Amino acid sequence: MITINEHYLKLQASYLFSDIARRVAAFQEAHPDRQVIRLGIGDVTRALPGACIDALHRAVDEMAVDATFRGYGPEQGYAFLREAIARHDFQARGAEVDPDEIFISDGAKCDTGNIQELFATDCRIAIPDPVYPVYLDTNVMAGRTGEFADGRYQGIVYLDSTRDNSYVPDLPKEKVDLIYLCFPNNPTGSTITREQLQAWVDYAREHRALILFDAAYESFIRDDSLPHSIFEMKGAREVAIEFRSFSKSAGFTGTRCAYTVVPRECTAYTRQGGKQQVHSLWNRRHCTKFNGVSYPVQRAAEAVYSAEGQVQTRELTDYYMGNAALIAQAVQELGFHFVGGRNAPYIWISSERDSWQFFDQLLNEAGVVCTPGAGFGRCGQGYIRLSAFNSRENVVQAMERIRRALT
Amino acid sequence: MITINEHYLKLQASYLFSDIARRVAAFQEAHPDRQVIRLGIGDVTRALPGACIDALHRAVDEMAVDATFRGYGPEQGYAFLREAIARHDFQARGAEVDPDEIFISDGAKCDTGNIQELFATDCRIAIPDPVYPVYLDTNVMAGRTGEFADGRYQGIVYLDSTRDNSYVPDLPKEKVDLIYLCFPNNPTGSTITREQLQAWVDYAREHRALILFDAAYESFIRDDSLPHSIFEMKGAREVAIEFRSFSKSAGFTGTRCAYTVVPRECTAYTRQGGKQQVHSLWNRRHCTKFNGVSYPVQRAAEAVYSAEGQVQTRELTDYYMGNAALIAQAVQELGFHFVGGRNAPYIWISSERDSWQFFDQLLNEAGVVCTPGAGFGRCGQGYIRLSAFNSRENVVQAMERIRRALT
Repeated sequence: MITINEHYLKLQASYLFSDIARRVAAFQEAHPDRQVIRLGIGDVTRALPGACIDALHRAVDEMAVDATFRGYGPEQGYAFLREAIARHDFQARGAEVDPDEIFISDGAKCDTGNIQELFATDCRIAIPDPVYPVYLDTNVMAGRTGEFADGRYQGIVYLDSTRDNSYVPDLPKEKVDLIYLCFPNNPTGSTITREQLQAWVDYAREHRALILFDAAYESFIRDDSLPHSIFEMKGAREVAIEFRSFSKSAGFTGTRCAYTVVPRECTAYTRQGGKQQVHSLWNRRHCTKFNGVSYPVQRAAEAVYSAEGQVQTRELTDYYMGNAALIAQAVQELGFHFVGGRNAPYIWISSERDSWQFFDQLLNEAGVVCTPGAGFGRCGQGYIRLSAFNSRENVVQAMERIRRALT
Repeated sequence: MITINEHYLKLQASYLFSDIARRVAAFQEAHPDRQVIRLGIGDVTRALPGACIDALHRAVDEMAVDATFRGYGPEQGYAFLREAIARHDFQARGAEVDPDEIFISDGAKCDTGNIQELFATDCRIAIPDPVYPVYLDTNVMAGRTGEFADGRYQGIVYLDSTRDNSYVPDLPKEKVDLIYLCFPNNPTGSTITREQLQAWVDYAREHRALILFDAAYESFIRDDSLPHSIFEMKGAREVAIEFRSFSKSAGFTGTRCAYTVVPRECTAYTRQGGKQQVHSLWNRRHCTKFNGVSYPVQRAAEAVYSAEGQVQTRELTDYYMGNAALIAQAVQELGFHFVGGRNAPYIWISSERDSWQFFDQLLNEAGVVCTPGAGFGRCGQGYIRLSAFNSRENVVQAMERIRRALT
């Protein structure tokens, strides 16, 4: 008899986005004349940069001719892309990362979801709250948690990110082995300073722990004092893996390209304490379960690093950050406590009431869709997330409507 | 201390393709004037069909304009592609498969590698020998095997595919829960009849087992009596999952698109015998760990089903099957026992000596690269695989060289 992985049964059904869709649909039905503005989703809305479009067309033309056709590429990605990434995203900032430490993939969701396979099932896992749900769900599926009770899975060390710690979690009091960090944070938009991040690296070195650093939103950092990569920190190469994505930096959510950095020194251990190179484990997983990213897509990602591509992607993120500034300004004028919006495309707003109540008020009175913070973890209760991913016109109108509704 | 998944340490280093590369490099250095012809790899060599190229360009143009830009798509794939697949690949052959039972992915390697996550770690697994190594390696990584000894992993039920059973394994004598089948087979090129496949379906129904049917090479079937899909068999919808790919049918090895069919009736069980819908488990995995296939690539896959695309992809597989016929004819004339080449792009040749010895002879005396069968399992010892994926000119020349070397 074929039996299932029963850990899947522990997963809580994610009602968040279906609940949102249901409430929005009901509102639209009741008010067919009112145009709803969606500031809930974390999906980009603007066209791909011209440099990427040109690179895609050129690569497609190569695929049309036998002589330049490309079949299977290296599972880890083409050298042209890995070299461009190492040079521009790391070496240019003083972070030592070599091209062969970069693994190209089709998404940071896949990478952050798959990485846990390399580690023992009884590792003690630390996960921020609130945070992107993939870290938690993939560990539930792998059997690293107990049942769900009182809004949390047993066996996970939750790293509370609250107003009290300015949304940057404190070092855990208990010993943990695998630590997820995400900065600029999704959903709070909060950032971590060099000193704070160095403290996490030092913790990991002291406890032989490993940090999984999700930097999918680093391209929105505007404050020069903030680190873009954990590999700007001293000693991080032994204890950290970093995830990056072209989804938000270059509008690739529908095009699909991301990458993971695993330094050669990055170390995990056998139960007996024998050192194991995480790079070779990840390489083995990548080669066994993945066949590389679409060739035209890798050429499009390479074009992000051209002179033209750098100007265009900066213009793209600047546009969204212009939206974020407008949202932040409006929220501040309305007197809400909030964080984010300065170095991240998300604004995390304390509503001082139930997340869903505030969601309903904004929908019904302003026709604006947000994301209730409770969907990102227990610490998200009482908050909502507004996203800067929309057109300027829609953002201006949405904030004007919210202003009118709440004053 | 961060500890590793020690099951990874059981994996045998795959020396197959690096060994081949090393031997070819040594030969080239010793004979710089001789041109080596590669009939070892399973990678396509011809340009993408024109219909796919046109669709890619059109989709890229859509991504260049805000109004038609696409961000995140459905994790399961766009309806336009799922509907085309259901209609053309299944319903047209009388197999009942609905669009929402089709999950679009970036590769059959990923899907055949990831599917085992849904099942308990103590399932009894049956895997053909010889076969594509991903089925075995991903189960080793998940801890479903013991150590490697005498050329095999303990705890796996190997399904021997030999000359005695015409390379179609017999039903296992022991009870198994999860059965991998691959037809047309990689590496042997053998096919399964309707009666044989029905017997496997009946076995699975009787024992509440599940069949993972890899049909990545179905587009090379030319014999009308052979089944293309396991869902042409009676009762298969309750006990089978099928994997398909555009890699070989439309030359997508570098473009990346595939799909998996999980019927709604397909059932697995809790330890207590409670029924669980495999469709909902796979959907949960897909949504949690995957973000969908690149939009232009899905449009290219859709174009495979256009009238033009159907003609072009048939022309593409016919070309390779023309190569296969030439290889089969030459091998037959040389007096070797072989299988495949009639409904598959691979020819599996019994060399009646060590695989690597024959490899060396073909390389040194004919300048032709094959794949030693021993790389696909213990039953592959004594065999080599020749692939039809090359230009007609190269195939003609390779077989002429082999003829001269061996006669």
